[in-house]
Amino acid sequence: MSLVVMKFGGSSLSTLEKMKHVANIIINRKEQKNKIIAVVSAPGDKTDELVTMIKSLTEKPSRREVDVLLTTGEMISIALLTMTLCNLGEKAISMTGYQAGIVSDSNYTHAKIKKINVDKINEYLEKDNIIIVAGFQGVDINGNLTTLGRGGSDLTAVALAASLCSNYCEIYSDVDGVYTTDPRLVKKARKIDFLSYDTMIEMSETGAQVLQLRSIEVAKKYNVSIYAKSTFNENSGTLITNVKELRRKKMEEPFISGITFDKSQVKFSLFGLPNISGIIAKILVTLARGNIIIDLISQFINSNNENNIVFTVNKNDMLKTKQELKILMKELQIKTMLVNDKIVKISIIGLGIKSDPNIIARIFSMMYEKDIDFEMISTSDIRVSFIVNEINMQRAVESLHNEFKLSKIYNKTI
Amino acid sequence: MSLVVMKFGGSSLSTLEKMKHVANIIINRKEQKNKIIAVVSAPGDKTDELVTMIKSLTEKPSRREVDVLLTTGEMISIALLTMTLCNLGEKAISMTGYQAGIVSDSNYTHAKIKKINVDKINEYLEKDNIIIVAGFQGVDINGNLTTLGRGGSDLTAVALAASLCSNYCEIYSDVDGVYTTDPRLVKKARKIDFLSYDTMIEMSETGAQVLQLRSIEVAKKYNVSIYAKSTFNENSGTLITNVKELRRKKMEEPFISGITFDKSQVKFSLFGLPNISGIIAKILVTLARGNIIIDLISQFINSNNENNIVFTVNKNDMLKTKQELKILMKELQIKTMLVNDKIVKISIIGLGIKSDPNIIARIFSMMYEKDIDFEMISTSDIRVSFIVNEINMQRAVESLHNEFKLSKIYNKTI
Repeated sequence: MSLVVMKFGGSSLSTLEKMKHVANIIINRKEQKNKIIAVVSAPGDKTDELVTMIKSLTEKPSRREVDVLLTTGEMISIALLTMTLCNLGEKAISMTGYQAGIVSDSNYTHAKIKKINVDKINEYLEKDNIIIVAGFQGVDINGNLTTLGRGGSDLTAVALAASLCSNYCEIYSDVDGVYTTDPRLVKKARKIDFLSYDTMIEMSETGAQVLQLRSIEVAKKYNVSIYAKSTFNENSGTLITNVKELRRKKMEEPFISGITFDKSQVKFSLFGLPNISGIIAKILVTLARGNIIIDLISQFINSNNENNIVFTVNKNDMLKTKQELKILMKELQIKTMLVNDKIVKISIIGLGIKSDPNIIARIFSMMYEKDIDFEMISTSDIRVSFIVNEINMQRAVESLHNEFKLSKIYNKTI
Repeated sequence: MSLVVMKFGGSSLSTLEKMKHVANIIINRKEQKNKIIAVVSAPGDKTDELVTMIKSLTEKPSRREVDVLLTTGEMISIALLTMTLCNLGEKAISMTGYQAGIVSDSNYTHAKIKKINVDKINEYLEKDNIIIVAGFQGVDINGNLTTLGRGGSDLTAVALAASLCSNYCEIYSDVDGVYTTDPRLVKKARKIDFLSYDTMIEMSETGAQVLQLRSIEVAKKYNVSIYAKSTFNENSGTLITNVKELRRKKMEEPFISGITFDKSQVKFSLFGLPNISGIIAKILVTLARGNIIIDLISQFINSNNENNIVFTVNKNDMLKTKQELKILMKELQIKTMLVNDKIVKISIIGLGIKSDPNIIARIFSMMYEKDIDFEMISTSDIRVSFIVNEINMQRAVESLHNEFKLSKIYNKTI
C-alpha cells in the first residue's frame, strides 16, 4: 500500500455530478492498492461569492473574520464529497484544516503553514479511511482560523505529502497540465510531459497559472513530485520533479520549456533626475516602505548627466505608487513621470538558456526581424524576460513559440 | 458591568441590512454598561438550503458529514456580523462552537451539550470584546464537529448563560414573544408577559414554536430567565422564569396561559384484538423497538370481550408504524386497523389547571355546546390535551380562547 495525496480544484467540484465524477477517480486510485488523502478546494466560484459578500458589507473587513467566512467554502466541499464517497460504499471521513492538524502562523488571509500534526490523519489512514481534507485553511497556535491565500489548496496537498513522507502528489484541474504557452493565445501550444521544479517555479512566477507558486517551492524543498493532470479526461499530464529524477528516468527537460506572459504589470518611467548620490536608493527605499514590490528595473545616465529610472510594479499598486512618486518628485526635483499600463512581460523559460549563450541572440534577432520593440530585458539562470507593448503580445509569443519549435516534441539536447 | 447573552435567529440575519440592524441592537445593549455575548443562527434559510443540497445528493447521508456541512451556516453569520460590528467601530470577535469551548456528545445531527469550557470566552470578555458565537454547533471529545438539532441556537445561548453564571438570556426572533395561541389562527391572540418554565415547557411540547423545548428545560435546570422578544420592534416581550421569581416580582402567571395545537400527529386504531394477556404490551414493545414514539394512547375492552387500542404517533413515523402493525396483525390475529391523519391535538395550558377541578368540566362542556367531537383526553399537572378532527381546529381553539377570556389581560387568581 502506498500513499497518494490527490488535490481537486474548485472547477472539478462545481456540481454534484462533478463531485460524483471526482469520487470515482478517487475510488479508482484507492482500488490500485493505495491509501488516499484528497485535498479539495471550495466548490466552483464559492470563494469569489464569499468575497463579493464581504465587499458588499465593507471595504476594510476584519481579516480574522474574512478567514472565518472563507473556510466555510472548503468545508462544504469536504462534507459533500465525503457523503458521495460513503454513498458509493466507501469508508471515508472528512477533516477540516484544524482537524487535519494544519498549524499556520497568524497572518490572516495569507498565512504560512508552520507544521502539520499528522497523528489524527495516520490514525484514520490505519483504519483504512479515504480522507478528504479541506484545502486552503489552517489554525494558528491559539486556535484562530486562517487561510493560506489564493491557490492555497495546492500548498495544503504538497505540505501534507511532505509531512507524511510521501514524495508524490497529484493535482487535478480543468486543464491537461502545463503547456509551452497559453493554448488560448497560441493554438499550437503543446502540453509539456516533464519539468524540473526550477523551470516550473520560473513559469509560475512569470504567468503560468496551473499551480500555485508557493506549492512548487515547497515541493522542491521537500522533493515531492507533482503530477498535474485533468479531472475530465484520461490524457497524460505534466510531471514536475527534480532534475536528477528526470535524468534517471531519461525524462529530460526540453531545451526551452515554455513561454509565459504577464499582463499584470505597469511601467513607471522617471526621467531627468538630478544626478546626486543616493537618489535612486531613496526612490527604491520609499517604495519598499510603502510595501510596493518592484519587478523589472533599469536605470541609466543620459548625455545631459541626468539620471533616469524605469521600473514595473503590479497594477494593484499603481495608485499607491503614483502617490508616493508624486511626493518624491517635488522633494527630489524630478522633471517627468510617465505611466504605461499597456505592457506585457514575456518570459522564455528553459534549463538550456544558461548553457547556450546563443539563445538570447536568437530571441532578439527574431524580435528585430518581426519588428517588435522590446525593453527592460532581465535574465536568470533559466529565464529571459522583457517588456513589449500589449498589441504585440500575440505576435511575439507565437513567433517565439515557432522559433524554438515548441509545438514539436522537445529535442533532447541538454 | 453585567453579562448579557443575546441570541438572534436566522430571520433576523437574512440580509446584510438586517445584520446591521442586529449589530445596532447589540451596540445599544453594550452601551448600557454590559458585557455582550451574542449567539447567532445561520442566515435566513441557509440551513434548509444545505439540507436540500444533501437530499439531492443522497437519501442516507453520513450524519458526521451532515454536521460538517451544517456548521458552515452559523460560521457565515458569525463572520459577517462580527465584520459589521468591527466596521461600526466596535471591538468584536467571532467564535465557532469549538472555539467557544462547547463540548457535546457524538450523537451527530442532534448532539447534547456535555460541558462548556469558558476560559477562552472569559479571556475575550476581559479584553472588552463583543463576542459573536456560532449557535447550534459543538465538537465531541475527539474534535468531530456536531450540531444540536433544529433550534439548537436557543440551547447554545441558554447553556452559555448558565456556564457563565448568568441567570438571564435574551432571545430575539421575528415574533413579539409567546402568545395565548397562534395569532395566525386566532386574531384575538394576546402576547403573554410572564410565564413559568413549566408552563412554557408544556406549551413548547404541544406546539408553540417560539423557543426550542430543550433550551427551556436547560433554562429551568440552571434557573436562567429567558426574555423572548422581537428583533424588529420595541414592543415588550415574554419573560420566562421560575414561579418564585414571578411571585416576588408580583408577576403572576395567568390562570390559563395559552392554547396550543399540533398537526403533526396521526391516529392508529386497532379493533378486535383477542383478549389475551400481554397483547397490548407486545404491540407497544414492537413499536418502541422500531424507535416509534407514541404520544396519546387509550385502550378499552368492549362487550364482546375484545381488546381495542388507539394511539397517535408523529406523521414522520406513519409508514414505519403501518409496516410494523401489518406484521403484528397477522401474528396476533387483529381484525381491523384504521389510520387517520386528519386530526389535530389541542392543548390548554396553565398553572391553574391542577388547582381547579372545574377547568376540565368547563373545557368539555363548551366543546359539547359547540358540537365538536373530541377524544383521547390526556392531562398533566398543568395541561389538558385531546384530539379533534382538523376541520374543527379553528372553531375549537377560538372557542376555548374566548371561554377563558385569554384576549384580556390575565386574571390574577392563582
